[in-house]
Formats: sequence, C-alpha cells, structure tokens
Amino acid sequence: MISAASVHATIQTKTIEYKQGDATLEGFVAYDDAIKGPRPGILIVHQWMGLTDYEKHRAEMLAQLGYVAFCADIYGKGVRPQNTQEAGAQAGKYKGDRQLLRARVNAGLDALRQQPLVDPKRLAAIGYCFGGTTVLELARSGADVSGVVSFHGGLDSPTPADGKSIKCKVLVCHGADDPFEKPADLTAFESELRDAKVDWQLIEYGGAVHSFTQPMAGNDNSKGAAYNEKADKRSWEAMKQFLAEIFK
Amino acid sequence: MISAASVHATIQTKTIEYKQGDATLEGFVAYDDAIKGPRPGILIVHQWMGLTDYEKHRAEMLAQLGYVAFCADIYGKGVRPQNTQEAGAQAGKYKGDRQLLRARVNAGLDALRQQPLVDPKRLAAIGYCFGGTTVLELARSGADVSGVVSFHGGLDSPTPADGKSIKCKVLVCHGADDPFEKPADLTAFESELRDAKVDWQLIEYGGAVHSFTQPMAGNDNSKGAAYNEKADKRSWEAMKQFLAEIFK
Repeated sequence: MISAASVHATIQTKTIEYKQGDATLEGFVAYDDAIKGPRPGILIVHQWMGLTDYEKHRAEMLAQLGYVAFCADIYGKGVRPQNTQEAGAQAGKYKGDRQLLRARVNAGLDALRQQPLVDPKRLAAIGYCFGGTTVLELARSGADVSGVVSFHGGLDSPTPADGKSIKCKVLVCHGADDPFEKPADLTAFESELRDAKVDWQLIEYGGAVHSFTQPMAGNDNSKGAAYNEKADKRSWEAMKQFLAEIFK
Repeated sequence: MISAASVHATIQTKTIEYKQGDATLEGFVAYDDAIKGPRPGILIVHQWMGLTDYEKHRAEMLAQLGYVAFCADIYGKGVRPQNTQEAGAQAGKYKGDRQLLRARVNAGLDALRQQPLVDPKRLAAIGYCFGGTTVLELARSGADVSGVVSFHGGLDSPTPADGKSIKCKVLVCHGADDPFEKPADLTAFESELRDAKVDWQLIEYGGAVHSFTQPMAGNDNSKGAAYNEKADKRSWEAMKQFLAEIFK
C-alpha cells in the first residue's frame, strides 16, 4: 500500500502559456511522473469564474488516476473574474459567440495534445457549468476526442444541427433540480444527440441543483446552485467509469 | 490470479420453494461458497416471461461479485408464460393489483433474508422490465432494503403518494428511446421521488430501447424492445457502483 503522501509527491504541476489567434492563454498541467510513457490526456474546462484552484485540484485528481490533465483557459491570461457580475460578462461573451468558444477550447485541446507524456490519439474533455457547455461545443466542433463529460453544464445549442459533427461519446451529469436548465433544454439536447445518432448518456441526480460538484457553491439548494456531496462523488465515479471504457 | 473456471466452480445454486399466503412460489438462490460469513443479499425480479435462465444467470453474476442473489418468483410455481400473450396476462394481473404485487415481492425478500449466508441488514433488489416496476413497488411498500435498481422498468404508479414510504436509495437505468415509457411517466416518476425527498438517480442510455439488457430481445430497435450491448454493460457497471456505495 502506497501512502497518500507519497502518491501526492509524484504529481507534477506546471503553468503553461499557449495561444489562440492573438490571445495569450494560461493553462495548467498535472501528471504523475512515477508513471512512464504516453497516457491519455484529459482537458478540463473551468466554470464561469475562470481557471481557479478548483480545476487545478481536479487536474491533480486526474493525474493521480494516471492521466495527463490540462486545465484550459478560455478567458485569457489575467482574465480572472472577481465576482459573479464579471463572471457573467465573460461567460456570456463566449456563450454568445460559439465559434470563438470553439476556437478557444480547441486551442486548449491542442496544448494538451502537445504535452510530452500525452498519447495524442487518446484524448477526452470534462467541464463544469460553463465548462460543461464548452466541452459540448468542443464535441460539436468535430474535435478528435474519444469522449466529453459535462458536469452541470448548460445543454442548449443555438445550432442543434451541429450535433451531426459529434464524433465522440458524450456523458452528461445533471442535477435533477437544476433551475437553470429548463426541461425544454434537456428535451432539445436529447433530440439533437438522438437525431445525430451520437453515443450519449445522461445521469440525473435527484436532489441536486446547479454546481453540485463545487463546495464553493455552499449548501443552500434554494439558491439554485449548491454543493451536493453524494452527487459529486457519484458523478466522479461515473466519469471514471466512462474514461475507463473509452480508453480500455 | 484465480482462473475464471475456478471462480465459476465455487458458485452454488439451488431452487427454493417459499410461500405468499396460500401460493407456492419457486425461487432460485446463488452464492459463492468460497466466501465465508454473512454478506449482502440481492433480490432479482424477473421480466414479464417469469423466472427464466436469464435471471438465474444474473444471480450467478451477482454471486461472483460476492453477494447472495435470490431470484424471486412473482407468478407462482409452474406459472411460466410460454408466449408474449401469456406473459402480458400475467404481468397485467400484477401491475393491475399493486397490493398483490407488493405482497409477492416482499415474500421473495423474506425468503432472501432467511438464506443462511445473508446479512439481513444489508439487502437490495434489482429487476428487469416488469421486475423493474416490481422493485419500485417494493420500495413504495416501505420495505427495509438499502437500495433498488430498475433496468428498463415501467415507472408509473397508480398511487404516487406512496413515494413517501420509500426508505431506500433508488437507481433507474432507462433506455432513452424506450417507446413504452412515455415522457409523462418519467416526469410523474421524478415528481413522485422529488416530492418524497427520496435519494434517487436516473440514467438515460442514448440509442437504447426497452429490454436493452436482454439478448433474447434481438437487435431490432424498431420493434421497441432490443438488446443493446453498450447500455447493458454500462448499466451493470452503474449497478455495481450503486451496490458498492450502499454496502460500503
């Protein structure tokens, strides 16, 4: 039995600058240097507050599972919202310009692909809230990934016909009581994937609202966004199972 | 590494007669006698054709996972439909009399509880199609189980207020293209569990129709019932994860 301390000691992390067009973006990579040779790479896309310690911690968790994890920076170096108003403005900018959003997330995927320990044929992406929406856009862009996982992401698409470009498997982890996702959005999303014959799964977690994986959301469901430990752990296990299947 | 053959060799199976009222029922138990001491017991409820080799095979799979598995017999000894018309009549009889259905499934649970290797405080139930409906009725009856799993079961309830009697965790594995389950049934089911504050999860498998775990259903989705290997394997993994959580 390896102690938790020694496992942690082997996780290497690094800030990585990369570009999309003229924009400079600042991502973060994590991997276990006790493992030798190329391995699958997982892109992580942040929630509306931008790249924070939350995503970096998820990257370390994925590194401990044996993946190279790379946190994308959609907003750009130094663009780190300080409050929900700034976050809403940033997220709104990219949700309102899906082509730009796709360009930004694909730049992150390219940066992941170029990491020395990554097997470029085995890639996946996960995302939280805004990042969930973003990894679905990555899929809709036709990106060459094996799978994407959305945690409490927005599912709506202004161009549902783009579902036909999805080449990867899709897993959606959704809070059954999420007030920001209308039943009509779920229905439209399912129709998009059904019509495009995508390999998809959607898990609804009873009692969970928006942001259910994020402790910083607090514990008050009546706010519409709150942490839910059960749904957090279950969705992480579901993701692990999904990744194990696509990379088996 | 233990070979598959030697693992199989340790699985013991037996036919078990038990009663519900005046009715004689004939179930089937499977367990691994290489494992010592009490362990969780899993009740398995059959689809509309009654108890068949299909459920017995699932019992052996659960026994290999370390559980005592017991296949209930809802219809009664010797009542084994030979065609879909007979199956429809039998399933219809019990779906139309939920009190009788609850009595029959609870008799099976009692029989499981009495098996010598079962820890009577750690019980769960799984069911397929008609059996999925049945394990949900078991939960609605207030039975003392830790969890129930429905695979492509009917979710409708004539008495949704009974959701308040559910004491266990609920996992529903559902084919997203199942034509026998109306969107209104799903919505009503979710409302029932939400209103009763049940701990529930529902997984939708894209591209899967009714009977997706059952090879005997064939491979023609247009019939509304068909086997789907991916959804079969994924739902089995989801069940394993669910059981691991409730019996941890």
